[in-house]
Amino acid sequence: MSLLPRIGSPDDLRALPAEVLPDLAAEIRAALVEKVTRTGGHLGPNLGVVELTIALHRVFRSPQDVLVFDTGHQSYVHKMLTGRLADFDDLRQGGGLSGYPSRAESEHDVVENSHASTALSWADGIAKGFEQTGELEARHVVGIIGDGALTGGMAWEALNNIAGAPDRPLVIVVNDNERSYSPTIGGLAHHLATLRTARSYERVLDFGKRALGRTPVLGPPMYETLHGIKKGIKDVVAPQGMFEDLGLKYIGPVDGHDIPALEHALRRARSFPGPVIVHVITEKGRGYTPALQDEAERFHAVGILDPETGQPLGTKGTTWTSVFSSELVEIGRRRPDVVAITAAMMGPTGLDKFCAEFPHRTFDVGIAEQHAATSAAGMAYAGVHPVVAVYATFLNRAFDQVLMDIALHKAGVTFVLDRAGVTGDDGASHNGMWDMSIMGVVPGVRVAAPRDAATLREELGEAVEVSDAPTVVRFPKGGVGDDVPALERVGGVDVLRRDDERDVLLVSVGAFAPLCLEVADRLAAQGIGVTVVDPRWVVPVPAALIGLAAEHRLVVSVEDNSRAGGIGSGIAQALRDAEVDVPFRDFGIERRFLDHGTRATVLGELGLTAQDVSRAVVETVARLEHVRTGGEDEAAGAVQQVEQDGAAEA
Amino acid sequence: MSLLPRIGSPDDLRALPAEVLPDLAAEIRAALVEKVTRTGGHLGPNLGVVELTIALHRVFRSPQDVLVFDTGHQSYVHKMLTGRLADFDDLRQGGGLSGYPSRAESEHDVVENSHASTALSWADGIAKGFEQTGELEARHVVGIIGDGALTGGMAWEALNNIAGAPDRPLVIVVNDNERSYSPTIGGLAHHLATLRTARSYERVLDFGKRALGRTPVLGPPMYETLHGIKKGIKDVVAPQGMFEDLGLKYIGPVDGHDIPALEHALRRARSFPGPVIVHVITEKGRGYTPALQDEAERFHAVGILDPETGQPLGTKGTTWTSVFSSELVEIGRRRPDVVAITAAMMGPTGLDKFCAEFPHRTFDVGIAEQHAATSAAGMAYAGVHPVVAVYATFLNRAFDQVLMDIALHKAGVTFVLDRAGVTGDDGASHNGMWDMSIMGVVPGVRVAAPRDAATLREELGEAVEVSDAPTVVRFPKGGVGDDVPALERVGGVDVLRRDDERDVLLVSVGAFAPLCLEVADRLAAQGIGVTVVDPRWVVPVPAALIGLAAEHRLVVSVEDNSRAGGIGSGIAQALRDAEVDVPFRDFGIERRFLDHGTRATVLGELGLTAQDVSRAVVETVARLEHVRTGGEDEAAGAVQQVEQDGAAEA
Repeated sequence: MSLLPRIGSPDDLRALPAEVLPDLAAEIRAALVEKVTRTGGHLGPNLGVVELTIALHRVFRSPQDVLVFDTGHQSYVHKMLTGRLADFDDLRQGGGLSGYPSRAESEHDVVENSHASTALSWADGIAKGFEQTGELEARHVVGIIGDGALTGGMAWEALNNIAGAPDRPLVIVVNDNERSYSPTIGGLAHHLATLRTARSYERVLDFGKRALGRTPVLGPPMYETLHGIKKGIKDVVAPQGMFEDLGLKYIGPVDGHDIPALEHALRRARSFPGPVIVHVITEKGRGYTPALQDEAERFHAVGILDPETGQPLGTKGTTWTSVFSSELVEIGRRRPDVVAITAAMMGPTGLDKFCAEFPHRTFDVGIAEQHAATSAAGMAYAGVHPVVAVYATFLNRAFDQVLMDIALHKAGVTFVLDRAGVTGDDGASHNGMWDMSIMGVVPGVRVAAPRDAATLREELGEAVEVSDAPTVVRFPKGGVGDDVPALERVGGVDVLRRDDERDVLLVSVGAFAPLCLEVADRLAAQGIGVTVVDPRWVVPVPAALIGLAAEHRLVVSVEDNSRAGGIGSGIAQALRDAEVDVPFRDFGIERRFLDHGTRATVLGELGLTAQDVSRAVVETVARLEHVRTGGEDEAAGAVQQVEQDGAAEA
Repeated sequence: MSLLPRIGSPDDLRALPAEVLPDLAAEIRAALVEKVTRTGGHLGPNLGVVELTIALHRVFRSPQDVLVFDTGHQSYVHKMLTGRLADFDDLRQGGGLSGYPSRAESEHDVVENSHASTALSWADGIAKGFEQTGELEARHVVGIIGDGALTGGMAWEALNNIAGAPDRPLVIVVNDNERSYSPTIGGLAHHLATLRTARSYERVLDFGKRALGRTPVLGPPMYETLHGIKKGIKDVVAPQGMFEDLGLKYIGPVDGHDIPALEHALRRARSFPGPVIVHVITEKGRGYTPALQDEAERFHAVGILDPETGQPLGTKGTTWTSVFSSELVEIGRRRPDVVAITAAMMGPTGLDKFCAEFPHRTFDVGIAEQHAATSAAGMAYAGVHPVVAVYATFLNRAFDQVLMDIALHKAGVTFVLDRAGVTGDDGASHNGMWDMSIMGVVPGVRVAAPRDAATLREELGEAVEVSDAPTVVRFPKGGVGDDVPALERVGGVDVLRRDDERDVLLVSVGAFAPLCLEVADRLAAQGIGVTVVDPRWVVPVPAALIGLAAEHRLVVSVEDNSRAGGIGSGIAQALRDAEVDVPFRDFGIERRFLDHGTRATVLGELGLTAQDVSRAVVETVARLEHVRTGGEDEAAGAVQQVEQDGAAEA
């Protein structure tokens, strides 16, 4: 390791002689494996773009030129080459290096959004903006997008717009590693596969031109006639047709691990006075044997690993994902009409088990959440029940389709939202904290938030029974704890604890049940009687909850979701509509984006801990008591006691 | 008119001899012009698809075969041919024929969603579903989509998936009329334009094959070599490349007004054992001179017209759209950094004036709301301030992009949402009743709801001053009333009325100001003192509102938006957070889809009238009084009085 530590900026990189670059690439790979296996993160994608990123920073001059990385998890090499090598020890740790581009970290970072398929729209917008400000002549704009991300509709919208402005320079680098997260599917994949086999195209073309010129029998009319011949042939030797049909200049395919070839292609693209696609073939996981041996995902994102073997260190126990994964197989066995849909996340969502047993009932639509939702509506129309498994944050992409295609058409489609709530170390855009808010406006929808493995299995089973509306089952990332038993079920609402004194009704949403039970313990220690309930189905608000609320002096809800439009808001509205004017307090995520950090750290910052919630509830109880009685001492004493408890723990 | 009235179902159509079909087409056109000019509706698109719809219903057997129309405003002819001719007198009237497909109306209607670009996803899902149920052999699935809708990303996602299943039959009809709403833009448009000029392609191809076979100098190697020649040529004679690159069989272009040619092409497509595209060229507005003379929109959607001249009957007065349209030009004159973006709705959103004066600062991205939002984020990064003008309901398509690309990146982008709230006669999916709910969860966003022309101008000006967050200005469809003056402005909140008695704080959102002032009159007549305020900026909740609320005994909000997660919900949450436990009631749109009807009718059904709101408020005041005093008579008397007032009016 002698070259990499000396690169503090792209200027240093550009000063290096070309012959040492393979050594630099090797050093970067070694650093990636060493660092990322220690902290967890996206390993495979970054191993694949080492040479490409080197070439990009040698040909273009960031930040004067703008490099936009799609789904920024491929930006680790970029970070190492822009002065952040030393920060990799704290990758994805609270306060440490983000796993995605971050404007706060560097002027070389532009787009922090880690939802796929956005880079070309960003690049198009930046180029249009520079055109307005007169900077476009001096600043190149480069969008770097994976072949998988090209399956997302946004990318198509952008390509269509970019192609519509043939005089506005823009460089699109397609990083084609033959897979999105799961191997890329669909017609585009076949097309790209054809391109990959056609490196000899330009040679063939030249030969053909020469051959024509030499053959006197072919005059101009015949020349033009012959151009009409294409069926079954163009796929072999004129593969870039799709892009050129749109009016986009095409360069490639280029070997993505050949730095001189990459630099040559990128320089050609840089000098082209319009939009141009550079098609680069890379190998995900390149240079790290364990990654290459992982056929399914190529170490797309990893936890903490043994760097030699690539095996996870430590045991994770049972995860929410695995509970869903197994249960859906059970449902599939007894319900032949149940089918599964994923948007390029077969393994991460746990659908791999279902797919293994029911391959013809499993559909990977690519990074295409809109299509996932609307094709599910179509499937429901045809008489089957689709289960769409998706990370909660990616449901944002399909809001209109859930509303307009599924709900309006009363289609029985079940969404299973993994990674709901605070996910922590993946950063702002991976938190699944908006799903319950946006689903809350959808007419007819039913949303379940299971509190443990048992209720996940139960509520999933209930969800797939609903045939006339969308259903949603959402749960967090990570390990599922022990089951939390109910004392009884009242009108569909599980009662988890019931004190004699009915001071506070504590509505626990989903996986916060253990936290809420701890809050109840703390409140009980202050002489405040608490009923803890889990509504199980949180949208719409169960009627039983209204009746329970009316029996208490204060109602409190705790949810792992945005407070704005969240479950608390819905309960408050239901109480108002029933004219149950019991004071109400809702705890959840404030309306702001969250910095990355462990889930526990982030929840602590949000005040979503048993200690913080119980202190706030005690204060409210005391204030309400004070308003009612005019007294003050007792309430103040209780607050003080809780604070002392907290101090003792900390 | 002798043929059309005898067609009660597609069976009748199929029984007609081919030679009378041109007469039938003429009768349908005459009926369209006569009926639609009388009720208003989508005229141009339906005039363009008369022959195509006839051919579809003769070749395919609906409902056994499934016809999915994209953006169902092109389904009038389909309705006439499926037994609904007589219902056209009540087109788009409350209780009458819907302007879009409606499952409640007919078994021939499948997709009611009138947001664009969904048909191919629906068709893909239905075909997949039929494959599961074993019906696919017996039931053909046909998606009919316009060239404009192909610019939407969803269509690309669907095409990619359809192409990825080469053995699953599916017919895609591309209705290419060279325009979406505005003339179609982008690379796809250029590509389709090329196709349109290439009707001779198949002939050329055949000739080429024959020529090759006759020319002995061309042996097999030369044959293959020649296939490599394409540059600049394929565009002329092998135009369908883009679709075939994806693996989609292509038939066309077909003259969309030649019924025998259409039937021939559709029969070929029907018998193809995989996905196939039929490319049909039609003329929007065909056969109606006034429509053809309207270059910009071809009478896409019309109000009530004189059928002879095509001119609107009656005057509309000043619309919200026109106020925005003029004001943006004013802003553009003093702010050279302001640019405008539309998603294929230049005229309907009122951006045409801005475009006329600043053509190089106006961007039509096609039916591509996702790209509109994210490219706006890119433009803001580059230093300009984009104003994205879009119908409120279509913002649903860009929720993720507003959240992740604009808000997360603190981009100064202004969304102007026309047709917000209840729009009425366009049916369920055109109501703009979710925008404030989904925007309400976006960190940093500011949402304004102007109450009149003056505040629209003022708030638009304030919006474009915000450079570090998304801003939203939303207003309803139709005419804007007189300005509603404020008595004073307190902390950004306009006070519209202030009684001495501070019983009720009435928070008026946007265009409901006159309604709220009428409610106040009615309440005052019952001895209830009301303060009416317009917060102007409704997200986030102005702090001044909290202070005002604390001075009253009841707080009431009225908004033209879903109650779920709406402005009322936000105010209630702000009051809770401030521990202002004043009783609160929010009026808005219930969580259900709305049937079409006039705006006034729909608002009446929702209880969003001055009479209904004032009665409900009086009841609540009475109940709260009752709780406080134990009295009953006075409250009951007040309710009775309001009901009598209502009866007298009705």
